[in-house]
Amino acid sequence: MRIDIISVLPELMESPFKTSILRRAMDKGLAEVHFHHLRDWSTNKHRQIDDEPYGGGAGMVMMVEPLDKCISELKSQRNYDEVIYLTPDGITLNQKIANTLSIKNNLIFLCGHYKGIDQRVRDLHITKEISIGDYVLTGGELAACVLADSVIRLIPGVLNDEQSALTDSFQDDLLSPPIYTRPESYKGLEVPKVLLSGNFAQIEEWRHEEAVRITKEKRPDLL
Amino acid sequence: MRIDIISVLPELMESPFKTSILRRAMDKGLAEVHFHHLRDWSTNKHRQIDDEPYGGGAGMVMMVEPLDKCISELKSQRNYDEVIYLTPDGITLNQKIANTLSIKNNLIFLCGHYKGIDQRVRDLHITKEISIGDYVLTGGELAACVLADSVIRLIPGVLNDEQSALTDSFQDDLLSPPIYTRPESYKGLEVPKVLLSGNFAQIEEWRHEEAVRITKEKRPDLL
Repeated sequence: MRIDIISVLPELMESPFKTSILRRAMDKGLAEVHFHHLRDWSTNKHRQIDDEPYGGGAGMVMMVEPLDKCISELKSQRNYDEVIYLTPDGITLNQKIANTLSIKNNLIFLCGHYKGIDQRVRDLHITKEISIGDYVLTGGELAACVLADSVIRLIPGVLNDEQSALTDSFQDDLLSPPIYTRPESYKGLEVPKVLLSGNFAQIEEWRHEEAVRITKEKRPDLL
Repeated sequence: MRIDIISVLPELMESPFKTSILRRAMDKGLAEVHFHHLRDWSTNKHRQIDDEPYGGGAGMVMMVEPLDKCISELKSQRNYDEVIYLTPDGITLNQKIANTLSIKNNLIFLCGHYKGIDQRVRDLHITKEISIGDYVLTGGELAACVLADSVIRLIPGVLNDEQSALTDSFQDDLLSPPIYTRPESYKGLEVPKVLLSGNFAQIEEWRHEEAVRITKEKRPDLL
């Protein structure tokens, strides 16, 4: 998978992509991520990429022309499955969307910043608008990191233990049951006896019951 | 505001906190963020902090003892308003939660990793469990960055233009109206006439109508 990320602050995304699973996916050749600094497509010598909104109001707007040039150049080089704009008013990311995107070949992620992008960029290029949740961030950069992480870890071969991704929360619409590791007793708090029983049928049953109980209690909307 | 972040991968969070609004908030003394490497609280010479789950199954579990020691030491130094565990089975972050947290003084963020933390850490210390959305990430580190960003930008004085935060999506349960900046015409796409009219009452009315229309279309659940 190839992901092209367009941003005014690519340096914000350096450490997440140099670390952990994202780094491993790139080292293994399973994913490549390319950053594009939007100012490189500015059309004036001040490298301007934003301007005041028509009609007045607070905050700056990302201009249509640099974004159009950048996206058009990328599109002339290869076919993209989706051109995704990270924005709080997009559809809300969930595990199904992450699963769907994980089998694509080429994706563009456009990070909004300031008040957002000129509407005409949406009209011309954007095929999907994604929000990572109902809250506002300083920019789309962290959202792009989150989306990339949620998608790239699902590519076969990225995680060492594929079983581990399949038993994550949300893959079966249930939250995870409680988990414990050594020691058996800590400050008077004990590991549930069933987990020490060695009876795997019973353990599976307990885990499923706990998962259902916790989901009912915390997130009845998922059931 | 002081935020203490406990993690096995603090280096993942370096660049987001060195950049943009988070950096500015720290430079202005409006927020301080301290990273704590969980391995520093390991109780054995291999700096081990995770172990296999009781009852079997894929993935490792973060052990209770190093986490208990780390959190207890921090709690002995100051009073914390909340000890927050970032986990996909927590309550879902929204703008209201971000607003509420933005007026707190001291917060601990605990980043889960691997399969999660021993249930007894939750029983002993965690006061709030927060998820940034219904998807699974490699670890809680990006979730901690997202939560910190959503909260810190709301602290008065962090944004240059406070008006800008107040007109963000979600602050009034409406998505944002379309925005435009120069030029007036681009590849045959025109800025709506009303935004060029100079009639601010009409512009406000148009923006409100568009915000309602877009919210109805994309996120009727918010209305």
